[in-house]
Amino acid sequence: MLGAWRLLGALRLCSSVSCPRPRASAKLRVRDALGVQDASGECVTVQGWVRSVRSQKEVLFLHVNDGSSLESLQVVADSSFDSRELSFGSSVQVQGQLVKSLSKRQNVELKAEKIEVIGNCEAKAFPIKYKERHPLEYLRQYPHMRCRTNTLGSILRVRSEATAAIHSYFKDNGFVHIHTPVITSNDCEGAGELFQVEPSSKIKVPEENFFNVPAFLTVSGQLHLEVMSGAFTQVFTFGPTFRAENSQSRRHLAEFYMVEAEISFVESLQDLMQVMEELFKATTEMVLSNCPEDVELCHKFIAPGQKDRLEHMLKNNFLIISYTEAVEILKQAPQNFTFTPKWGVDLQTEHEKYLVKHCGNIPVFVINYPLALKPFYMRDNEDAPQHTVAAVDLLVPGVGELFGGSLREERYHILEHRLARSGLRKAYQWYLDLRQFGSVPHGGFGMGFERYLQCILGVDNIKDVIPFPRFTHSCLL
Amino acid sequence: MLGAWRLLGALRLCSSVSCPRPRASAKLRVRDALGVQDASGECVTVQGWVRSVRSQKEVLFLHVNDGSSLESLQVVADSSFDSRELSFGSSVQVQGQLVKSLSKRQNVELKAEKIEVIGNCEAKAFPIKYKERHPLEYLRQYPHMRCRTNTLGSILRVRSEATAAIHSYFKDNGFVHIHTPVITSNDCEGAGELFQVEPSSKIKVPEENFFNVPAFLTVSGQLHLEVMSGAFTQVFTFGPTFRAENSQSRRHLAEFYMVEAEISFVESLQDLMQVMEELFKATTEMVLSNCPEDVELCHKFIAPGQKDRLEHMLKNNFLIISYTEAVEILKQAPQNFTFTPKWGVDLQTEHEKYLVKHCGNIPVFVINYPLALKPFYMRDNEDAPQHTVAAVDLLVPGVGELFGGSLREERYHILEHRLARSGLRKAYQWYLDLRQFGSVPHGGFGMGFERYLQCILGVDNIKDVIPFPRFTHSCLL
Repeated sequence: MLGAWRLLGALRLCSSVSCPRPRASAKLRVRDALGVQDASGECVTVQGWVRSVRSQKEVLFLHVNDGSSLESLQVVADSSFDSRELSFGSSVQVQGQLVKSLSKRQNVELKAEKIEVIGNCEAKAFPIKYKERHPLEYLRQYPHMRCRTNTLGSILRVRSEATAAIHSYFKDNGFVHIHTPVITSNDCEGAGELFQVEPSSKIKVPEENFFNVPAFLTVSGQLHLEVMSGAFTQVFTFGPTFRAENSQSRRHLAEFYMVEAEISFVESLQDLMQVMEELFKATTEMVLSNCPEDVELCHKFIAPGQKDRLEHMLKNNFLIISYTEAVEILKQAPQNFTFTPKWGVDLQTEHEKYLVKHCGNIPVFVINYPLALKPFYMRDNEDAPQHTVAAVDLLVPGVGELFGGSLREERYHILEHRLARSGLRKAYQWYLDLRQFGSVPHGGFGMGFERYLQCILGVDNIKDVIPFPRFTHSCLL
Repeated sequence: MLGAWRLLGALRLCSSVSCPRPRASAKLRVRDALGVQDASGECVTVQGWVRSVRSQKEVLFLHVNDGSSLESLQVVADSSFDSRELSFGSSVQVQGQLVKSLSKRQNVELKAEKIEVIGNCEAKAFPIKYKERHPLEYLRQYPHMRCRTNTLGSILRVRSEATAAIHSYFKDNGFVHIHTPVITSNDCEGAGELFQVEPSSKIKVPEENFFNVPAFLTVSGQLHLEVMSGAFTQVFTFGPTFRAENSQSRRHLAEFYMVEAEISFVESLQDLMQVMEELFKATTEMVLSNCPEDVELCHKFIAPGQKDRLEHMLKNNFLIISYTEAVEILKQAPQNFTFTPKWGVDLQTEHEKYLVKHCGNIPVFVINYPLALKPFYMRDNEDAPQHTVAAVDLLVPGVGELFGGSLREERYHILEHRLARSGLRKAYQWYLDLRQFGSVPHGGFGMGFERYLQCILGVDNIKDVIPFPRFTHSCLL
């Protein structure tokens, strides 16, 4: 960015009424061209794809987009430049002078002196049609083309900004980034069905394992982050996770991204909830400030009303209720649920939705779940007779569960007892070791990244916020 | 970081000779405590693991590390605090006053007023021994414990910094980050043997595919980035890639990380090489400036002489030779190779090593390889009779091939012809589509992230620069 500005400064020194030839003009991204405040005839070259063509008697208007921003650059040319090849979707290189635009719709426009069509685009065969607003379902059939629409372009830029914002948040707060493994030999965490991996030539001889043991795609980096939290007090990971579930829902994928953090020396769930809320709010504020037009596009065309809903989430403190309170609220609800709410049974999507609505559409932490519902590693609250663990889920409007986390059982004997009872004592000796040598109270959480994007943008189907969705019966490209 | 400094500023306002009780003192990371310039008795609490204990007649010295830096904080306590539990590896919480240290070895030290042992560490069973420098091979047996040593701590902090630096480099230069998929149905790129994935319950009935088609772990995000480079002129990805190779070499893993970028409207390999060199240098400068002590530890104890070698790489412009020139250099070499160098045959590790040495240990780009050696997507140079493609590899001292890249064949008919000849026409229809609609000249590259770390730190074995190495016969944890 800075580079482009400096470049433009230098250009200005030598700008004149017409471009001095044959000196090549400077390449500028559309975003940078649009940001120029007092354009005064700088010679520039812009490259991109034609988003619109409007031919008048004497003037030709083009809009050129290069993916650096939602907005395209208006190119104004003599009508003699018009050609059949200069069509929607074709790639072009335009050289000319950057000038102040007379129209109120843009600051600057490019007065073309040379237009080169780099690659044609035949309208008939092109699945994206000029001036049509294609439904997201339609675009899903063309995973290699849909990024060329405004909507997917905006969603992918937001995804990129959110990724950067998450890395920044953790770095600025002293977290060490860890690449937790994708292939793992842990198979018994109980987080749903696993994908197994073997070399393609050996997949039919499963008695031989490439890694000597059966190996699976990770469902979470938590246990590996816990290893690291015996040496670094704050760690995080942000990578792909997998579920081999036969689900076609609008909230599930076979391959999705998780942001996970683990913190040592935590004292209570409060310490974790503070980081979760901060992460959500800081990331969202950064996205809103860095790509407001992209977010606005989604809020305007995909999810009207979402702007207000998001502002409401951001300006309020998230709420906290216990699982026990949640069940009470559900029991007293004036509506009938398909699954009758009952202490000791998991909350269903319909319950989550009701709870969020009951809380005034403010995100709500539900804490302290029944021990029997949760995996072995969650910290026992020792609160007989109910017997809960220090688990926490964050429920948000529209999406339901966005974060899940817990304090981890750091006490050797309690953990050993629970592992033994589940028959996992031997497989998790290494995990017990972490408690034998310098154990510390610790806890962490995971946030589903696609659900986060759904939540802030209001995108209904998770398949539309990931570049290449993978789910049962579908792995295109 | 800023937060901690502000906190300390606030603390100073109320600091006095002894800590006011019962008010809790502020938690400070070791790194932040060490960075305090004029310590004057601020009440702080530090948490971490004991790295050394030295008991004198009246004074007890501890070093406490929390993973935020290589350096530990010296704690000075009355000998009455001494206890058997306060041992190497145990976790502690220390409350006291931060004061200027009288010793020259550190700026500040913590005058302890309260020391709490949080988790014991029994020396006998602990695989890491006090005051011993364990070989890296020994530590590899304990993937859940080795991060607690200085060396692995430093390597992992460098890895985290390098990750952040790479994201920054691309963001600052206007690249859009894309999560390319891990699971893919592309199986014929010829980059080595693939891992196949199926739900663990179905791995024995391979005629049924979860995704309806056979699905594999990605060997590169390139083709998916190329999809994106039809909408965004600069994209990158940074994620895990896989090879099911039966290799135990010090340069190969079954799961490793790649940084990949794709740029539209490139004119020549020069455009790509410039980005590769800038990425290498900018990332390394940022790592050197953000964690100099960690890099120094590696340069001092793991790879003496590496500091000078790295400086030499950074201060020189990378060199460029053609494959044809490289073969000539090898033919004229005064040494015998196991594999006789010959035009049309791949360069071997021994050749790469010789070339780098021949180039004065400056990284060297080798460009324009024989078409027959390279995959279908590389751009044909049409330079009969030799017939090369616009491919580029960057060779670096110690490691060999660090980057690989190419211009991509953007011309529909040439690509179609090559696909047809390889029998891939049908499987890659979608890839051809990219050339049918607004095709642009483009190219990109991939950098092996672990090899990059080996290169800058001088770590000999790739298994030591990744938190949890996966290779044939081994998938620990």
